[in-house]
Amino acid sequence: MRYLYHLPLSPYSRKVRLVLAEKHLPVELRAEKVWERRVEYLELNPAGTVPTLIEDNGLVIADSNVICEYLEEAYPDTPLLGRTLAERVEVRRLVAWFDGKFAQEVSRNLLGEKLMKRLAGRGNPDAAALRMGYVGLRHHLQYLGWLAETRKWLAGGTISLADFTAAAHLSALDFIGDVDWSLSQPAHDWYAQVKSRPSFRGLLTDRMPGMTPPEHYADLDF
Amino acid sequence: MRYLYHLPLSPYSRKVRLVLAEKHLPVELRAEKVWERRVEYLELNPAGTVPTLIEDNGLVIADSNVICEYLEEAYPDTPLLGRTLAERVEVRRLVAWFDGKFAQEVSRNLLGEKLMKRLAGRGNPDAAALRMGYVGLRHHLQYLGWLAETRKWLAGGTISLADFTAAAHLSALDFIGDVDWSLSQPAHDWYAQVKSRPSFRGLLTDRMPGMTPPEHYADLDF
Repeated sequence: MRYLYHLPLSPYSRKVRLVLAEKHLPVELRAEKVWERRVEYLELNPAGTVPTLIEDNGLVIADSNVICEYLEEAYPDTPLLGRTLAERVEVRRLVAWFDGKFAQEVSRNLLGEKLMKRLAGRGNPDAAALRMGYVGLRHHLQYLGWLAETRKWLAGGTISLADFTAAAHLSALDFIGDVDWSLSQPAHDWYAQVKSRPSFRGLLTDRMPGMTPPEHYADLDF
Repeated sequence: MRYLYHLPLSPYSRKVRLVLAEKHLPVELRAEKVWERRVEYLELNPAGTVPTLIEDNGLVIADSNVICEYLEEAYPDTPLLGRTLAERVEVRRLVAWFDGKFAQEVSRNLLGEKLMKRLAGRGNPDAAALRMGYVGLRHHLQYLGWLAETRKWLAGGTISLADFTAAAHLSALDFIGDVDWSLSQPAHDWYAQVKSRPSFRGLLTDRMPGMTPPEHYADLDF
């Protein structure tokens, strides 16, 4: 059996879950409380981060980017990185954009402060970080909306890992009620399309003890 | 002509320069003062980071990871990512380790505080960050030494992007005199091997106005 060590609201875990589902690869999820720094887990993944994928054959694959590149090479039937060199450059650029810049400017400031800090028992959210997060989210929604308006999908004519990476981050923020979709109609319409894919179902049924997502979170006609 | 927008002491730029040289791909370097946020540069790479590669045919490739994946696909003759799926997983894991964890715990605290802050006119190094950087570097040199002791190269039997990524970060730190090589003999010996490759020459002749690297920086028998 294939296992994925994950956290329900980790955008990086969500990205890998979407890719596995798009490629029709069954997986058993195991929640890993990374802040406990379990020795057995650090032996699998010395970086101590989620996600980590364990393949049927025992191969251990840590880091969401490494996992996605591996899945693309091992299971190329549903390609998610584009076909031509130029397409692959644009898909990977946007993956780096959302996993790097968006994560640092938005996800870390909002999810990190509101959720991860609480889970790890590291105190209350920092007000300045939250403010930066909301400002960043507004800018990023505009950029995302511009991409969605000028292209069929974020990286071009076909749905790709760029869409799933962006949607993974936004879905986690949407769970904690932080996305004001009225800020960008094109971003809203793009997200509605990604969200209605069968691969998204697992994410929409995620629940966390003591947390209730807003009503629109799992609603496909939000 | 192929161009690389870079900064001489950016580990990410150095990694790409090493890969280009290993693959015998000529390139013209253009220093980009990213802190000035030039509009023309932001049009090439909206993230505003270095490096950005411009190919002969005009293709623009931003982000060192995207560039390295592209170069591997476009110029596969000198493979640097490994051959089997398992090898590629280990090479990419270590690339993510050095570009992610090492960068955050060491490069950002030392290079970021001592060099980038000064270049960008953002004041003096923060003492707590420097302390964390030196502690982190000690741990990372031990891990690197352990890898170098148990394997021929960092990711296994052949030299790979893992070695060039680690060496790119360490070479930039070595330039500012921050690496105490006596902390790990195996790490020292591994670095001496990487450093003596022809692809490394360009890095060893880099000079920055107002900065003198320590004497051993360019010495192959350091």
